[in-house]
Order: sequence, then C-alpha cells, then structure tokens
Amino acid sequence: MAQLNTSRAPRQTKARSFGPARKTGAARVAEPEIAADKLRIIPLGGIEEIGKNCTVYEFGDDLFIVDCGLSFPDDDMPGVDIVIPDMTYIVKNKDRIRGIVITHGHEDHIGALPYLLKEVNIPVYATRLSLGLIAGKIKEHGLKHIKLKEVRPGSVIVLGCFKVELIHVNHSIPDAVSLAIKTPIGTVIQTGDFKIDSTPIDDKIIDLARFSEYGKKGVLALLSDSTNANRPGYTVSERKVGESFSSIFKGASNSRIIVASFSSNIHRIQQIVDEAVRYGRKVAVSGRSMINVVSIGVELGYLKIPEGVLIDIDMIRRYTPEQLVIITTGSQGEPLSALHRMAHSDHRKVNVGKGDLIIISASPIPGNEKSVSKVVNELLKLGAEVIYEKMYDVHVSGHACQEELKLMIGITNPKFFIPVHGEQMHLRKHAGLAESMGIDKKNILITEIGRVIELTEDTIKTAGMVQSGRILVDGLGVGDVGSIVLRDRKHLAEDGIIVVVMTTDGSTGEVVAGPDIVSRGFVYVRESEKLLIDAKKIIIDALATCSENGNRDWNTIKGKVRDDLSKFLYEKTRRSPMVLPIIMEV
Amino acid sequence: MAQLNTSRAPRQTKARSFGPARKTGAARVAEPEIAADKLRIIPLGGIEEIGKNCTVYEFGDDLFIVDCGLSFPDDDMPGVDIVIPDMTYIVKNKDRIRGIVITHGHEDHIGALPYLLKEVNIPVYATRLSLGLIAGKIKEHGLKHIKLKEVRPGSVIVLGCFKVELIHVNHSIPDAVSLAIKTPIGTVIQTGDFKIDSTPIDDKIIDLARFSEYGKKGVLALLSDSTNANRPGYTVSERKVGESFSSIFKGASNSRIIVASFSSNIHRIQQIVDEAVRYGRKVAVSGRSMINVVSIGVELGYLKIPEGVLIDIDMIRRYTPEQLVIITTGSQGEPLSALHRMAHSDHRKVNVGKGDLIIISASPIPGNEKSVSKVVNELLKLGAEVIYEKMYDVHVSGHACQEELKLMIGITNPKFFIPVHGEQMHLRKHAGLAESMGIDKKNILITEIGRVIELTEDTIKTAGMVQSGRILVDGLGVGDVGSIVLRDRKHLAEDGIIVVVMTTDGSTGEVVAGPDIVSRGFVYVRESEKLLIDAKKIIIDALATCSENGNRDWNTIKGKVRDDLSKFLYEKTRRSPMVLPIIMEV
Repeated sequence: MAQLNTSRAPRQTKARSFGPARKTGAARVAEPEIAADKLRIIPLGGIEEIGKNCTVYEFGDDLFIVDCGLSFPDDDMPGVDIVIPDMTYIVKNKDRIRGIVITHGHEDHIGALPYLLKEVNIPVYATRLSLGLIAGKIKEHGLKHIKLKEVRPGSVIVLGCFKVELIHVNHSIPDAVSLAIKTPIGTVIQTGDFKIDSTPIDDKIIDLARFSEYGKKGVLALLSDSTNANRPGYTVSERKVGESFSSIFKGASNSRIIVASFSSNIHRIQQIVDEAVRYGRKVAVSGRSMINVVSIGVELGYLKIPEGVLIDIDMIRRYTPEQLVIITTGSQGEPLSALHRMAHSDHRKVNVGKGDLIIISASPIPGNEKSVSKVVNELLKLGAEVIYEKMYDVHVSGHACQEELKLMIGITNPKFFIPVHGEQMHLRKHAGLAESMGIDKKNILITEIGRVIELTEDTIKTAGMVQSGRILVDGLGVGDVGSIVLRDRKHLAEDGIIVVVMTTDGSTGEVVAGPDIVSRGFVYVRESEKLLIDAKKIIIDALATCSENGNRDWNTIKGKVRDDLSKFLYEKTRRSPMVLPIIMEV
Repeated sequence: MAQLNTSRAPRQTKARSFGPARKTGAARVAEPEIAADKLRIIPLGGIEEIGKNCTVYEFGDDLFIVDCGLSFPDDDMPGVDIVIPDMTYIVKNKDRIRGIVITHGHEDHIGALPYLLKEVNIPVYATRLSLGLIAGKIKEHGLKHIKLKEVRPGSVIVLGCFKVELIHVNHSIPDAVSLAIKTPIGTVIQTGDFKIDSTPIDDKIIDLARFSEYGKKGVLALLSDSTNANRPGYTVSERKVGESFSSIFKGASNSRIIVASFSSNIHRIQQIVDEAVRYGRKVAVSGRSMINVVSIGVELGYLKIPEGVLIDIDMIRRYTPEQLVIITTGSQGEPLSALHRMAHSDHRKVNVGKGDLIIISASPIPGNEKSVSKVVNELLKLGAEVIYEKMYDVHVSGHACQEELKLMIGITNPKFFIPVHGEQMHLRKHAGLAESMGIDKKNILITEIGRVIELTEDTIKTAGMVQSGRILVDGLGVGDVGSIVLRDRKHLAEDGIIVVVMTTDGSTGEVVAGPDIVSRGFVYVRESEKLLIDAKKIIIDALATCSENGNRDWNTIKGKVRDDLSKFLYEKTRRSPMVLPIIMEV
C-alpha cells in the first residue's frame, strides 16, 4: 500500500473554529473577573482601524452589543473576501446578551452580523433603512427566525439594566443614529459615524438639542467617531454636491452622464435623480449593490423617483445620450464593479466612448487610489470625459471634521473621552482635540481591540483583555485561513512552487520512479529547461548522498532534497520558491 | 523507468529572452521603413505611466536614446523586483546608436541602464551627479569598459546628425537637465523632469533664458513633463521646506529629530544638515541608499557638511536626544526600509519612543498611501511625535504645476506638442493646457509606448509600432517571469494549491501508490481533515470511472481528476485552488 509524507514538520496546532477555540489573533486568555458595580466597555473592532466596528457593553449580568461590522482585506491577505471580528467573547457570554443595537447600515457596522447571528440568536435593533439592509443580508445567508426590531430616533430600547436612546445624526447614509446609553452609573454616548449637516437632503439636521440635554444632565463618557480627526474645519454639506451636479448637468447637454458613487449613499442618489428629472433625463442603474439599494430605498420611501424616470438598463438603447443618466457602482475602481467593466469595454449593456461624461462621485478610500486612477485612465482612453478627484465638488465626506468633533465634545461635555473609529493617527489627533477642549488628559483613553475598559462614576481604567482579533472569511470558510495559510499564499505568490515527486520501493528504499519536478509560478518553463535539468541532477545527488549514508528516513531525505534544491535555485536565480518534496512508496 | 506528465496542456510558446525574441508585451512586428528625411521619436516607456522613461530619436542612419529608467512593480506582479522597458528595438539597431543621454539621476530615468549596457556598449552622457549615481549601479552589476562621459549644462553633445544641448532645470535632485535636440529638420526640446524654482537651494534657477532663445529661433516639438498637469498653480520652492524645518527644529529643543526623505533629494538633505548645524545637532544617516547618496553627494561636492557634524549611526548613544538628527530612508513606508524597521522596533541601532520627533518629508507616491499610514500609526504607538502629510510644509514636489507647464509651452512656443511622463489623465490634462495656450489641437499628439512618431518640418503623425512593452526582473531573471507565471502566482496567492500524486503500474495501468493529496495555502489542514478525506474519495471515484471506461490516457485521467476535484472543492468551500495532478509510472 502507498503511504504519503510531506517534508514539513507538523504544523503548529492552532484552534481555528469560531467560538472559544476559534481565534486567529494572539492568545489573550486571562479574562478578568466581572465586577458587579462597574460598567465594562469592550471594543472587539473599530479601534486602530477603520472597519469591523463592534463594541460590547456590560454591567453586572447584562450585556449588549453596538454594531457588528466587517472590514475589507489588506494586500497581505490574498484570496480573503472579508474580515470580521473575533466574537468569541460574545458567543461565550450568549446567555447574558440582551440584544444588539445598530447605528447605521454601512458594511463596517452591519457586515459581520450574519456571522454572529449564526452563533447566537439575539434581537437586532435598528432603524428602518438599516433593518432593510440587514434583512437582505440575513436572507442571503439563509438565516431564519431572527428577531429584527425596528426602532426610531428618539425611542428608547431597554436591554436589562441599560436604556439605550437613539439620537438622529447626519451621515452618508440615511437613518444613522448615535446612542445615549443610560447605565446604572451614568450615561455613555457612542456617536457612531456622524457629521453635522445644516442643510441635509432629508431636511433632518442632527439632533444637537438632544446631545446638549444629555450634556447638561451629565455624560459619563463619550465614544466618538475619529475618521476625520486629521481634517481641520467643517465637513461640507451633502447639498453642495447637488449644486455641483446641477452645474455639470447643465453644461453637459449633449452627453450621456454616468455617475459612480457608493450605493449606500441614498441622498447622493436622490440628488442625481433630482438633477436627471430637472434636465429631462431617464435614470438607469448598474451594479448589483446599486440595484439592490435603489430598490430598498424606493420600497422603504427613502428614495423618491417620479414615475417613468427609472428605466431598465436594457432600455438605454432606446434613448439618445442626452436623455440618459446611468448610476453605477465602481467608484473605488473595484475590479469586478460595473464602472471597471465599462472602463475595460467589458460591460454587457454599456459601451463607454466619446460623448460620455463620467462623474466619480467619491474619494478613493485609502489603498484604492491606484485602482481609481487606473479606471479613470482607461475611461479617458475610450474617449470619455471624466470628472474625478477634486476637479469639482462632486463628493463630500460623511464624517465630522475637527470643528464638528470639538462641538460634539463641547455640547456633551463628557467626564471621560474615548476616541474610536479610527487608526492610531486619528485616535491620537482626536484625543488632542478633546484635550484642547479642556478634558483632563488622564480622563482620555486611547485603547485597543479586546482591552476591557472599566468605568465607575469617577474612574476609568483598563482591566485586562478578552479573546479578540480578526477572523478571515474566504468563500464559505470562516477562520480556516489563518496566518500559516496566508504565509504560504504570500510565499507562493512571490516565488511560486516546485514540487519534487518520486516513488521508492518499500523493501529496498530504491527510487523506482522519478525524481521529477513540476513547477508553477516560478519560471517560464520553456525558457528554463536547463535550469530544471540541473535541478534534477541536484536532487539525484542528494538522494545518492542519503543512500551512501544509509539514510532511509523520509523526513531526512526530504529535508536534504529541499535544502540542496533551495540553495541551488537561489544561487542560480536569487529566488526562493516553495519546495515541496513528495515521496511515495510501492 | 519513470515518466512524468502534468495535466496542463502545453504552454503557449512565447519568446522570453531579451533581444529580438525576448519581449513580454504583445507582438508588434510590422515595423515601418525608415524614411531618410524624417525625424522619428519612439517612446519605449514613460507614456501612460510614471516610470521607466526611455525615448529613442532617429534620423536617417543615426539613433540616440534619452534616459533608461525602471518602474516599480504593481500589486499584480508579486515577487517582481523591478520593471524595465523592452529595449529589443534598441538592441536590434545597435550599430546605429550614437549614445545615450541622461536627464537626471532618478531611478525612473537611469534604473534600467545596466540592463541595456549588458547588451550594447554605448557611450553614456550625463551630468556629474547623475554620472556618479550611474557609476555606482554599473559597478554593482559588474559591468566594465563602459564609456561614461561627463557633460555640463550648456555643453553640446554631437551624436551623428544630432546636436544635443543640455539646459539646466530645477528638480528634486541636483544636476537635472532638459535637452534641446537639434535635428536636420528643426529643434526638439525634451524637458525631462523639471520645476521652476526661483529660490533653489543651489541658487541656480532653471535656465529660462535658454529655453526662450530656442523659442524665438523656433522649436519644432516640445516633449514636456506631465506629472503635475492635474495641479493648478505653481509648485512651491524647495526653500519653503527649509523654513518649515527651521521652525520645527526650533520648537523641538528636547527631542531627538528623525527625518525620512527620498535619498536622492540632496537639496532636502542639505537643508536638514543646515538646520542641524544651526541648532548644534549631530547628523547620523540610516538606510543603505541614504548612506550611499550622502557619500556620493559629499564626494562630488553637492552636499556640504561641516566637519564633525556627520557621525556614524553607532555613535548616537554618546549624544543626548537634543543633540541628534537622524536622516533615514523609508518615507514611503517600504517594508525593508530603515524607518519601517524603527517603527516595528526592529532597527538594530535606533530605538524609537517618547521624546522622538519624526518628520516624514515626502508625499506618498500613489499606491503607497496605506503603507505610509501604517508606519505613522506604529511610530505613534511607540510614543513618538510624527509630522506627516500636510501638517506642515515638510515636502514640496519636484515637478512643474499647471502655470509652470504653461510658461514652458509659452517660452518655447513649439509647433508640435507631445505630453510625456504621465498617466493618461496627466497627458490629457497637459494636452488641454497646450491647447489653452493656442497650440492647434491637430499639432498635439498623445501617444503610447512603442508607437513611432514621425516628424517633418510641417507634419506630425504616427507611423507604426516597434516591439516594446515591459520586462519583469525577478532576482537574476530578466524576462523569465511573464504573464503565465504571474497568472499562476496570482492564482496560488488567492486560493493556494492542491497537489494530487499517484503511481501507476506501467503494464496494467493500476494505481499502486496513492492517490495522495498535499495542499499549501488552501485551508488550515488540521481543521479540514474531513474535507481532504472526502476529496480523496472524489479522486478515487474519478479514477474508477476512467478505469471502467477503459481510459488509460494520462491527460484524460488527469483532466477528469482535476475537474471533479475542483468542482467538489468549489461546492464545499467556494474556492478554486490550483489542482495539480501528477501521475508517476513504475
């Protein structure tokens, strides 16, 4: 019978399943005792990163969660689809969970929810639009019997000893809220993502009065959005974008207009629709998430499109360019997005060329700068006009800049301040702003994921760590791609692989087939015949040496083959492909 | 005896060696006849990209080259070290080459020179500093007998029928020049990289008078730097950075100062040294390229450091923080750079912490934004203060903005205009600027790599293509990593590999060892035992089916194994690892 053995030493065992034994981050096991009279706040994501926001609040026997978001993989996570927080701590304490409250419907606040709800069935509280978006996700994941509870700004959710009030804020998606969390020792305000827009599209200005009322009564702690803490001044109103659209539409009377934006920015979409109506254009929608959000937006009444304006993308051929606006995904240059396909003449319905005016109504998210430029370059080559970057005010941020952040600190007047939702640079800057507003430096806490913040009426301190980190989702696999798999992928990507196979006679140890070499991602084989012939000689020599030394241990033989071959290949090519020796026995 | 066969169909033969049969780009073979009375300009790089600048000029039997630069690999070229132009056309015409002229010593203008000089030994003309940097490269590559010819701004190089005058310009490296190329049918000006700095550090303002003189006499064509064509206004003077350094140094009297910048920016380094001297600090240098350039700069007299100011990095422990400035590489967040190592507490000589003030005196090159942020975040976590981005004016560009570009067009007043050194978006914008300056639209040409531009005294047109494209350098291999290898690397990176091995009896076709499975970069094996056991069953079933059908053709068997296994794995995991079946025979 055959036997198989590869040369690598047994992999280090690391628990990899979701739940207590499923973390990929560093082991953090010494969880502190829970004090009955202290408020504990534990961020499981969203600190030192912009993404996967998830915060646990605990008091005595009660626990609830704010948001459950995902983040997108970095360049060093090839093949990974999304990244979610390690939520082991939540799962371990599932009997104590009173619910989860969602601040708004962006992916970095709701994207990991289906993964959590597969483990714990807890009530989900969210505003109408957020709930609409969550419902779609839950359906996609085939989840049933989930308790979705619609709440409105101003209403209060009772979660054990916690009373959570929703406060309306402005953001780049409608129906966003801050949370005022009344606890037995005081009120904590978690802003969620927000900006202060005095002229929002839905005419609902952030409820500054309510924040002020809490401020007057006394706020124990403020957890505030740090995304734009580096930016001075005020964030421009969303309405400004509409004005830009208006003048662009006016001047583009002979062109078809294509606007790329974030699908979740329903107010942006509303403004595009409004201009289309004003200039007598029909609106077609392209891109899966854009079609999805437009349909939810219309259904729930957040997006108002007069009858007859919206047409199917298949119908665009019936109209002349100046009668059309196409709203599309792809503002980040994403490879599979509709705009990317248009740019590469690979879109089945839309052929971009001369006479098209394309507006990229978004800023590149850090890391996407180059992909956006590439799409712009391709669109220009097709002969289209493209409006991008800061050429016109076709995009504004959804997050508060420094003056707004200071205002929030000023009106809530918290005793303790915890900057959240930002990288280290944003958190530090935000902490500096708080200090400049008169908050005592020792009352400001920059924390990290998994670290327990313990609050009393008078004190703030950190108190140990809970299990936390990141879980990689690749296809259907949740957590089965960890650091070893990623390390292998990186190695394979940079230098490729060389597989060395041979069959030996079980009784004599003699090689009866092979050794043979198969490579992938290493060199162009046709051009490197000599290299591979020489490599085979190296292997045969290595085997001969082992044989002379009477060595018949597979691991030793494979180690020798791998070492000699790696050394030879590095000398010849200055590359270090993964070498995988396989010995079979007959 | 053993035999080996992998399941992939024979790879498409593609020439892969440097020279006529060595290109990696698309085949472009129909090279046009050379007309004896026409000037031909052929960009082999630097168009639709910022990088690997290389331009061929031809008239009759004479040919010369301007610059020979490299570019850095994109994210989609894992493992690749650098990218150089396909210079086959030059090599094929080596008997006609009169020389190569270098505009300045940046990598994107000189980095591919050693690779060219390995193929053709031609005289290299460059100014003193550029030549110093080139000499270092040539030595590293072990090249001998290269004719390096030092030239000065104002001098004229005779290259067959061409007379090339060097005109001094300002840029982010000293000793940069534009070229005024006198040809039998008129003068062409190629600006190289430039800016207009009225207060440069070396007091030598760009020689606008000389450009104007050519303008008055009549310029046939202008090839001008498009890098900043998107930016309105003027580029700020390098001296402004010195002023910022001055006020930062003044306010940092208790801190050690660490400045990261581009090593080639000798004027920047000079200004750091000047401030160090003013505030009584010693200067230490970290990072291979920084040490190299500082030494060349001092040796050639471009960098003036008073005696006793420069100290070895090993000596820093002898000084207090306020007595020190460290100049380092790593302003782009490069993983192996000195600053990156400092940020990750991995630098052998410098421990960063509280009391350090770090200045990142550079903007992120597009694509590097995230790596720079990461380094900043890590430095902040160590307790250092960090000055980055636009917090102070600690960086200015080396390239002309719109008003300077317009000035260059205005004073040279060319008949034909060819924007170069930019992506499509920059070239288009630059063309628009030229048009706004009164240049006839039909006299403006946006071209592409490999396309021949043919000029007469009155006409400009494109005339066919020459072989061109990109050659990837990976370790010692030049051109042996092509699109197939990259495709494999990408596939391996995203989904990993599954190797299926088995040994069959040559006479009966029966499987006598295996099938066995080895995977890398696919799943965490310990957690996926069941999956791999099931996968093995799928393979055995596939073999059984082939056997029942009497099929003994290896390619058919392997195809069946690969298809069935791929389908099974995709169903179970939604991933598509590379499946590599290997059958051996005894």
